[in-house]
Amino acid sequence: MPQYNAFTPKHLEEIVTLLEPSRVLHQTHDLLSYSFDASFGTYPPDVVVQPISTEEVAAVVRFANRHLIPVTPRGHSSCLSGGPLPVKGGIVMDCTKMNRTLNIDEEDLVAVVSPGVITAHIHKAAEAKGLMYPPDPSSSHISTIGGNLAENSGGPRGLKYGVTKDYVIGLEVVTPQGEIIRTGGRTVKNVTGYDLTKLIVGSEGTLGIITEATLRLIPKPQASETLMAVFDDLVHAGRAISSILAALILPSKIEIMDQASIAAVENYEPCGLPRDAEAIVLIELDGHPAAIGHEIQVVRELCERMKAREVKVAQDDSERNELWRGRKLVSPAIAKIKPTKISEDITVPKSKIPEAFERLKRIREKYNLHLVIFGHAGDGNLHPNIVADIRDQEEMKRAELAVAEIFQTAIELGGTLSGEHGIGTMKAPFLESELGAAGVDMMKRIKQAWDPNDIMNPGKIFAEPGQRLVLTDER
Amino acid sequence: MPQYNAFTPKHLEEIVTLLEPSRVLHQTHDLLSYSFDASFGTYPPDVVVQPISTEEVAAVVRFANRHLIPVTPRGHSSCLSGGPLPVKGGIVMDCTKMNRTLNIDEEDLVAVVSPGVITAHIHKAAEAKGLMYPPDPSSSHISTIGGNLAENSGGPRGLKYGVTKDYVIGLEVVTPQGEIIRTGGRTVKNVTGYDLTKLIVGSEGTLGIITEATLRLIPKPQASETLMAVFDDLVHAGRAISSILAALILPSKIEIMDQASIAAVENYEPCGLPRDAEAIVLIELDGHPAAIGHEIQVVRELCERMKAREVKVAQDDSERNELWRGRKLVSPAIAKIKPTKISEDITVPKSKIPEAFERLKRIREKYNLHLVIFGHAGDGNLHPNIVADIRDQEEMKRAELAVAEIFQTAIELGGTLSGEHGIGTMKAPFLESELGAAGVDMMKRIKQAWDPNDIMNPGKIFAEPGQRLVLTDER
Repeated sequence: MPQYNAFTPKHLEEIVTLLEPSRVLHQTHDLLSYSFDASFGTYPPDVVVQPISTEEVAAVVRFANRHLIPVTPRGHSSCLSGGPLPVKGGIVMDCTKMNRTLNIDEEDLVAVVSPGVITAHIHKAAEAKGLMYPPDPSSSHISTIGGNLAENSGGPRGLKYGVTKDYVIGLEVVTPQGEIIRTGGRTVKNVTGYDLTKLIVGSEGTLGIITEATLRLIPKPQASETLMAVFDDLVHAGRAISSILAALILPSKIEIMDQASIAAVENYEPCGLPRDAEAIVLIELDGHPAAIGHEIQVVRELCERMKAREVKVAQDDSERNELWRGRKLVSPAIAKIKPTKISEDITVPKSKIPEAFERLKRIREKYNLHLVIFGHAGDGNLHPNIVADIRDQEEMKRAELAVAEIFQTAIELGGTLSGEHGIGTMKAPFLESELGAAGVDMMKRIKQAWDPNDIMNPGKIFAEPGQRLVLTDER
Repeated sequence: MPQYNAFTPKHLEEIVTLLEPSRVLHQTHDLLSYSFDASFGTYPPDVVVQPISTEEVAAVVRFANRHLIPVTPRGHSSCLSGGPLPVKGGIVMDCTKMNRTLNIDEEDLVAVVSPGVITAHIHKAAEAKGLMYPPDPSSSHISTIGGNLAENSGGPRGLKYGVTKDYVIGLEVVTPQGEIIRTGGRTVKNVTGYDLTKLIVGSEGTLGIITEATLRLIPKPQASETLMAVFDDLVHAGRAISSILAALILPSKIEIMDQASIAAVENYEPCGLPRDAEAIVLIELDGHPAAIGHEIQVVRELCERMKAREVKVAQDDSERNELWRGRKLVSPAIAKIKPTKISEDITVPKSKIPEAFERLKRIREKYNLHLVIFGHAGDGNLHPNIVADIRDQEEMKRAELAVAEIFQTAIELGGTLSGEHGIGTMKAPFLESELGAAGVDMMKRIKQAWDPNDIMNPGKIFAEPGQRLVLTDER
């Protein structure tokens, strides 16, 4: 186990020589503002730094490595797995002020971006030139691209377009020992040495700090169509999704909301969704108008054949936006039900989507929990959310058991613990059950070889001996 | 530097207990058959093993690691960068008999394959179910998928569809110390720990031996169109390509042949190509018939505007095949010009394609070499090939200098040494010029952490101290 040094006033004195003192925060209220993300727990750091250049990032990392002080990089911290939590204290590196570069190169079909740029700004800049940056996590209006890169964010377009990693072709990175390296470049084809780009993307800030990224862009699809199908049985909805994929149609989005999600939305901000339905499926097709005009009819027929009680195709942009509005409200809506929200993120092979729904329904009944199911059903990425009250210790105990069973279900169905949120702190105890001891060992070897002092975002991905999921106050 | 043990009869005695003796080859003629690939040099191994199961692979690797004997995995060895060459002797592991699994799962949209399966067989099996496995290296009719995975093969479809790595979502791997691990899985979304899948794909057999892979498939496009444009100036051809991409059209293939390629083909097997043209560009669009029917007209106009002297759109499958026939003959045709072929593989950003052509022309003149240029121009991946005669030492010296200048050009234009062939032995001395010392160091740390005895395909990717490119007999 690494031994960190306690952060002292002397350390603070040295840090303010590395970057402008106004960008070194150490008041109690600052430290509290940087102590949480959108997951669980509160961990105040010892100091917050706000670099504006790669050189400043490197200087702080070298300082931290020399003095054995942990460094946790952070964007806007919409993270759902604890990535930006400074669980071992030390330095939080707030990268949001590194937001000066957002260059779209329409000849090379790339965007070059600083880590603090907001993801939605990349979408907008690309679209202004007729291009698209496909990864679109639900938080994209507030999340930074740096956070998306660290966690390899997904979003609803994963089915057709893949995830963040699929669009990153080059990085500038400060290594855990403070060296500045460049990986990949501006070309899609590149086999010069190991692919460090795709190793670092999704490594949750444990292998270095990304200070610039080159993202691949694609031509923006000319048109899109949206359809809503309403089902009286969640499992029928799963079968409809499977049948669309089996018909070799690749929608840009297939989203699902179960009855609990529908009720939450209608209670929060009524959208006219059918409260008595067991599931709503929203499907978006994009591409050439002639192609998707034909495909949307096939999708309609398949949904009807799979017992949809109602199928509605949006006729214009305003109808399209109205259909998507309910889906976008699910997360804020369920956060209102009870104070504590445990967001899971399992992913199963496409053929197992109906079975995953069946088993999640059984888990909800077995543990008598408020379990809401929604997510990116087309790529098998489901977000079972347990809403509970952390003050009800008995309920939280049941939630702990349910979470473990949800993970077990994902693995048994040939899926994974996490499709797009990352492992962070909460899923670390379950890593070995998916990867095996040898698989985890190969990952740890990389971490140790790159970061022998374990200063880069320690306490993430890899569990400490005996660590287990604890949602109650006992920790 | 690691010290290997000499291979002794005692070692052979032990190996034949690990797999059936008929699959352990050690006669001189066997060793010679396994001493070369499609690149440079001849390195006979001490023994060849032909495993048929993951357990046999693991047993041999554990044996090799215990006795400090190098292991070099090998498919059908169409490799152009020396990947399968046993440059340090020891064991060649012929994986071509591991060819039993080729399962297409049309529900999950994946193929599960053994490493010895021929790539073209995957194409065929996927197409039989209406699906497509897009990576299509030129050697796909003979290459094994294991070799494609080791080298992260590309091919003409890189522009629109990416490369091998973009379609690998899960692996079974024997590590350099003989452990069996599984990486990734059957889902596109997976952020459970570091992405070992994409680290291992393209690592040229230096980080382990792939014993099974799960490949992502997509629906097969409904239709395709092919166009040939003839240019009197290579640089105009480059500008035409840039203008098509700038018009936000993403062809499935954009291939280029220069005058030397055209002449080579016409001398080898006449196809009616215009010998006096300086370049031919072949463009394939795929997708919905209505979409590509419109796009092909835009492409035609752009080529004409960029001074194409002739543009021809194929009217049916037989015309399409005829247009592609010449392109497919380039490699065999130029191999007939002179006995020695040095195949390069630089890749430049799309906007730099015209400048790359200009500079390659200058290099050809400066060194007075038979330099043939063809390749996947749409993704910037060019194959400058020098044809020479190894018995002409003075010519080979000029070739050495030209190759170094070609690499320098790629790096100066913001590109890379290798787009799809790999670094292997020949490009190793140039690795640091692209990645910097710190970048190479981070790669070496992974290699050392995974393979402390350096037994897995040693002598590849990383140059030995003082190593430089030598094409003459002096080595």
